[in-house]
Amino acid sequence: MAELKGNKYGTHRVIEPKGVLTQAAWKVDNDMSKVYSNEIVCDVTSLNIDSASFTQIAEACGGDEKKIGEMILGIVAERGKQQNPVTGSGGMFKGVVSHIGEDLKKKPGFDLKEGDKIVSLVSLSMTPLRIDKILAIHKDIDRVDIEGKAILFESALYAKMPEDMSEPLALAALDVAGAPAQARKLPHEGDSVLILGANGKSGVLCGWEAMKKVGPKGKVVGVVRNPKQVPGLLELGVYTDVIVADCTKPVEVMEAALAANDGKEYDLSICCVNIESCEMSAILPVRDDGVVYFFSMATSFTKAALGAEGIGKDVTMIIGNGYTKNHANITLDVLRENPKLRKLFDEKYC
Amino acid sequence: MAELKGNKYGTHRVIEPKGVLTQAAWKVDNDMSKVYSNEIVCDVTSLNIDSASFTQIAEACGGDEKKIGEMILGIVAERGKQQNPVTGSGGMFKGVVSHIGEDLKKKPGFDLKEGDKIVSLVSLSMTPLRIDKILAIHKDIDRVDIEGKAILFESALYAKMPEDMSEPLALAALDVAGAPAQARKLPHEGDSVLILGANGKSGVLCGWEAMKKVGPKGKVVGVVRNPKQVPGLLELGVYTDVIVADCTKPVEVMEAALAANDGKEYDLSICCVNIESCEMSAILPVRDDGVVYFFSMATSFTKAALGAEGIGKDVTMIIGNGYTKNHANITLDVLRENPKLRKLFDEKYC
Ligand SMILES: NC(=O)c1ccc[n+]([C@@H]2O[C@H](COP(=O)([O-])OP(=O)(O)OC[C@H]3O[C@@H](n4cnc5c(N)ncnc54)[C@H](OP(=O)(O)O)[C@@H]3O)[C@@H](O)[C@H]2O)c1
Ligand SMILES: NC(=O)c1ccc[n+]([C@@H]2O[C@H](COP(=O)([O-])OP(=O)(O)OC[C@H]3O[C@@H](n4cnc5c(N)ncnc54)[C@H](OP(=O)(O)O)[C@@H]3O)[C@@H](O)[C@H]2O)c1
Repeated sequence: MAELKGNKYGTHRVIEPKGVLTQAAWKVDNDMSKVYSNEIVCDVTSLNIDSASFTQIAEACGGDEKKIGEMILGIVAERGKQQNPVTGSGGMFKGVVSHIGEDLKKKPGFDLKEGDKIVSLVSLSMTPLRIDKILAIHKDIDRVDIEGKAILFESALYAKMPEDMSEPLALAALDVAGAPAQARKLPHEGDSVLILGANGKSGVLCGWEAMKKVGPKGKVVGVVRNPKQVPGLLELGVYTDVIVADCTKPVEVMEAALAANDGKEYDLSICCVNIESCEMSAILPVRDDGVVYFFSMATSFTKAALGAEGIGKDVTMIIGNGYTKNHANITLDVLRENPKLRKLFDEKYC
Repeated sequence: MAELKGNKYGTHRVIEPKGVLTQAAWKVDNDMSKVYSNEIVCDVTSLNIDSASFTQIAEACGGDEKKIGEMILGIVAERGKQQNPVTGSGGMFKGVVSHIGEDLKKKPGFDLKEGDKIVSLVSLSMTPLRIDKILAIHKDIDRVDIEGKAILFESALYAKMPEDMSEPLALAALDVAGAPAQARKLPHEGDSVLILGANGKSGVLCGWEAMKKVGPKGKVVGVVRNPKQVPGLLELGVYTDVIVADCTKPVEVMEAALAANDGKEYDLSICCVNIESCEMSAILPVRDDGVVYFFSMATSFTKAALGAEGIGKDVTMIIGNGYTKNHANITLDVLRENPKLRKLFDEKYC
């Protein structure tokens, strides 16, 4: 039977509202019995829920695992995708390719076959998903093991599981693949870089890339709120300095940050926290004409735009695009290059 | 009596939550009987409410002027500032300097004196404000005439009223001062630029700056939803082409935009609409490595970040900072350079 023809971006799966793309849709069609010639169907084994989203769900459920599972099932049943209605964010999935549409198979350069193990590098917030069963909830690492199916559109990004590391390790790192690639792109040699949320997953990966880029004349300063994290982070070799301050308190962050940089403002800050209201802490310590890179999904557009204006700061503020060229390889290479970081990831996220 | 000492950024006026800056505060202290040595107190004559905020307020009040006034009074009474709790945005004010703190007066280069007519160039969302009386509501231009007082902090930005144009004209233009300055900075000669919300205030100002910058080999294409606006806009000389599409429909916008640019993707898009869910319309028509500048305050951070990732677009997305060096002069110069635009502003916004 001939397969159905679908749109490159997946608009054929949008149920409501009409005319938008799948990420903006309230509800998408997760009917897996429809077979489109440009879709990849996967058997999903686990979901890595976006950190901001998982935090919100876990809080709403008072940390109760059964309720967390029910809430996730409820979201997917209602929307056809795992997109948290409060945070708007999703996550990614791990799975096995179970069907490839006939037009994709013929596409030059197409590199997947049925049976390949992959991780999705597009957000769950735009990925049609059906959950048949929840197998386990790993609260400490925001991961949910399931039985189910998901669809990747023609424009979607994915990575084949690397041979030289475990699946959970690759999945944990690829979840934040956009950030380290940017931390390589944005700084210049000799720059000072401030990383907020320095003990988090994206923070440490960014730290390593920034250290390589700024070189011995530069500075990469991490901000954490918990003093106990300082020695371990310094040991990793991903920061020149680690300071303690609460990122929801911009004045506190600025004072500690300037003190760690000989009183000078920073060339670049990268915001990797997982909570709200950290915009000003990322903006205040940066010099005029500097750059603020917001990777945190808890960033508010208006707080950043009006906040910078409010204090008369001429900084370029960038919205953390989850995708940039070669981001998967850059991210996995960090783990290959820094064995201490790899060990940390193995212990903490696997 | 010696005046009180305040913080450069105004944190001494924050009531709750503690430790944040005034823009992030839920409530600021608008008690004008306290006199700080680094504050400027102004008698306010009118408020230009941010377009996204005014639209929301007007809709919530079913367009009823009395109710709009009451809602604005209510917000200011509760929060000590005109910050719309739904949109998070503010606007700006026009007024007369009534008191200058003693430390500011001594500051080298300080250029204001009591009696000067100024407009604020920081957002009302972080400006302590007291409204004594609402005098008039101009629904068509988002302006509210009042009697009241406002405070500018030491770091705040303002512009003295220019001599060569009327107050309402300068106020209308300065309200969106950040946008045209960026439209001058971001494009290169020969670039193609797409402007969404092309019939709006910021749209036409951006169009003019972009036209000058891209030169005769470039293209500046405006997007409007109303076909009746096309001839008038072409007449203004601020776009090479004007196309008709609904900016909440990304596929529609992309198709029309590419058709107007010989099928090629754009180097830059500038989003100047005043409604939600236009992120993908700004992202989709832009080439890989291109730039998307979000000036619209209705932009959602997560929709932009996840949306670009979702379609695998490696674009740099910039949060529209209301401030950039020299933005007030650049904006007023547009009106000086383009008499047709000045006439339009005089008719439409004054
Ligand atoms: N833009 C994109 O495409 C994209 C893609 C994936 C993820 N993300 C976002 O990136 C962000 C970070 O992700 P992640 O996986 O790196 O998160 P993570 O591992 O949970 O790390 C977040 C860090 O922020 C720290 N933090 C929280 N509140 C703080 C405060 N008040 N002061 C100082 N530090 C604070 C946490 O410190 P503690 O250790 O003390 O808790 C933690 O170390 C999330 O918001 C996520 O949504 C964005
Ligand atoms: N970042 C900052 O610092 C800053 C500062 C000030 C203002 N702003 C923001 O900038 C934005 C624009 O301000 P403005 O004063 O230029 O607003 P404006 O004059 O009201 O213009 C908005 C334009 O968007 C158009 N539009 C609305 N929905 C549309 C749709 N679905 N498709 C196509 N066009 C559509 C409107 O078209 P119609 O003519 O058909 O209604 C209008 O021409 C606002 O969101 C405002 O909040 C940002």
